Amino acid sequence: MLRRSLLRLPPLPSNARAKFCTSSTKFANRAIVYTETGNPATVLTALTYPSLPPPPPNSLNIRIRLAPINPADINVIEGVYPAKPALTGSLSPGQELTKPVYVGGNEALAEILQVGSGVEGLKKGDWVIMAKQQAGTWSSARTVDASDVIKLPADTLSEVNAATITVNPPTAYNMLRDFVELGEGDWVLQNGANSAVGQAVIQIAASRGLKTINFVRNRPDIDALKKQLSDLGATHVLTYDDLSDKALSRTVKQWTEDRPIRLMLNCVGGKPTAQMTRFLGTDAHLVSYGAMSKQPLALPTSAFIFKNLVAHGFWQSRWYDTHSRAEREALMHALAALKLKEPEHEIVTVLGWMSDVEAKEKNQKTRDSA
Amino acid sequence: MLRRSLLRLPPLPSNARAKFCTSSTKFANRAIVYTETGNPATVLTALTYPSLPPPPPNSLNIRIRLAPINPADINVIEGVYPAKPALTGSLSPGQELTKPVYVGGNEALAEILQVGSGVEGLKKGDWVIMAKQQAGTWSSARTVDASDVIKLPADTLSEVNAATITVNPPTAYNMLRDFVELGEGDWVLQNGANSAVGQAVIQIAASRGLKTINFVRNRPDIDALKKQLSDLGATHVLTYDDLSDKALSRTVKQWTEDRPIRLMLNCVGGKPTAQMTRFLGTDAHLVSYGAMSKQPLALPTSAFIFKNLVAHGFWQSRWYDTHSRAEREALMHALAALKLKEPEHEIVTVLGWMSDVEAKEKNQKTRDSA
Repeated sequence: MLRRSLLRLPPLPSNARAKFCTSSTKFANRAIVYTETGNPATVLTALTYPSLPPPPPNSLNIRIRLAPINPADINVIEGVYPAKPALTGSLSPGQELTKPVYVGGNEALAEILQVGSGVEGLKKGDWVIMAKQQAGTWSSARTVDASDVIKLPADTLSEVNAATITVNPPTAYNMLRDFVELGEGDWVLQNGANSAVGQAVIQIAASRGLKTINFVRNRPDIDALKKQLSDLGATHVLTYDDLSDKALSRTVKQWTEDRPIRLMLNCVGGKPTAQMTRFLGTDAHLVSYGAMSKQPLALPTSAFIFKNLVAHGFWQSRWYDTHSRAEREALMHALAALKLKEPEHEIVTVLGWMSDVEAKEKNQKTRDSA
Repeated sequence: MLRRSLLRLPPLPSNARAKFCTSSTKFANRAIVYTETGNPATVLTALTYPSLPPPPPNSLNIRIRLAPINPADINVIEGVYPAKPALTGSLSPGQELTKPVYVGGNEALAEILQVGSGVEGLKKGDWVIMAKQQAGTWSSARTVDASDVIKLPADTLSEVNAATITVNPPTAYNMLRDFVELGEGDWVLQNGANSAVGQAVIQIAASRGLKTINFVRNRPDIDALKKQLSDLGATHVLTYDDLSDKALSRTVKQWTEDRPIRLMLNCVGGKPTAQMTRFLGTDAHLVSYGAMSKQPLALPTSAFIFKNLVAHGFWQSRWYDTHSRAEREALMHALAALKLKEPEHEIVTVLGWMSDVEAKEKNQKTRDSA
């Protein structure tokens, strides 16, 4: 199973003040930043910045409790991801940096520390996640627009579930909802089934009474993985090696007999993905949210013309950009109610007493194991 | 330009009666038939059958005036096309064949000879086309259900335009209408632009004030082809060779500047098609209706995820299956009003005095030049 790394960057304790801060600051914060894209091992550095003044109108001060280190975050730093962060000239309002920086991190669980005037529906202590992409979550505390956060339902999520709820669970949830109307007993086909999204797909599908056929790579401990996914609710788990078995089409047909498969979720691409489309019925939708094989999606044109296949992509970032605050909060309520299993994870705490160089090294080590 | 072949199978003249027919028949008809799929040169044969008795209730007797020989018709005979004709045990009600046959041909202009009781909205002399796929149009006359024909508007179409209106023009019309809402000045990108559908796309797009970027294969007389397509209304005509020119993206961007391309029509597949998708804006739809290259449609997954590309197929047969009689007739009225240019064609008349063997050879020759 993929193990998630979560970063904790608590504010520096008061005895560190003298070392890092001007006398006017009460606490000091940390951020993992870079000034130009490139190899994260080279470009990332840790930066100390003063505590935040009270937030301006319609803004919030938030403390970031836990921030995942996602593969896409690394791609952003490398400069190869379509979403780009903005350069920021100040990490604490009123305190200009000598040189603008990018702050790493997209996803996080944050807690509201202080609410500016004019903010409605949010209060101190509320848990929130970022509605704005590339918000720079690898930091201790930030001042943000009230419209850039989504409030989480109170007391329903663990800290780890809350910190990892922004990207993967909603990707799974929306892909299962937005493309094909599925009812109890209908089937969903997916690859990369042990990815974070894939595991969420299995759980959400099972909660709706949908059946899943899940493909994963073969591996020495395949039976353990199959059991883990079955425990999450997977109906069948197969490996890409099974695709060379000609009898598999017949088997799948027997399973799905009176309900041809109309939804396939893909994060792999390349040949195995094309082979999987032969299990689809007419009028099916193939939704891609990743390309782990780095191969293009090569499909027979006849599948589009004669089987009426439709191929889409899904990007949760676009979903946030095109949906209202109310829709976002409704989505979070729906996800919280599902009580998804916490992803396998480790929490890496960058402590206040570490020097910037030590913090950088710890962050580096974490990314290597991610 | 592709030249269409159209088959004319007039009824046999009365002096042929004695040779082919029982004494009770007044005229005799011809059909191009086969009993098993395979190489058309081997499996096709011509068959003579008696004239039709009056049609039963809710049926029509029709005379087939002109029937195209389409590439898909050949694929049907070869057994490699998804739509299969039904075996028929009788070409004239009440007269059983010794062995059931498939009758070739899908598309035709027919004229109503006689109307059975209970048929409404159709009368002797009306021009009709086939609403049912694989109706066996390579024949002189047939008895059909009234619901299996679509009435054409009177006096608006030439015989050739009417005979070729069932498949290609509606494919073009519907692809331009059903996937993206396009307004005057919007752009459409297509390949195979000198195909029958491609030429219809150019004309229909021009009639709606849409601009087209059209790709064709390079050839010695490319300037003549470019002029022909421009005369039909093409905005720009390029060859697949032009795709290797890196500056082309910039050129296309200049052309389409404030209106990124949101619709691409594809009948080719393979690498040039994938290269063309780089000209598309976000939220574009790629609609495939053919695969002349016989290569799969291989697209970068990132185009689906980050540009929100959606890939569909279009098959006019499915459209007919899923639309009402009123919708079909409205489509024909819309197409007739467009006054599309007659496709380049030759009419092959299989005369009554030809023997079955001669008729078969003539049909063979025609297909070779199609």
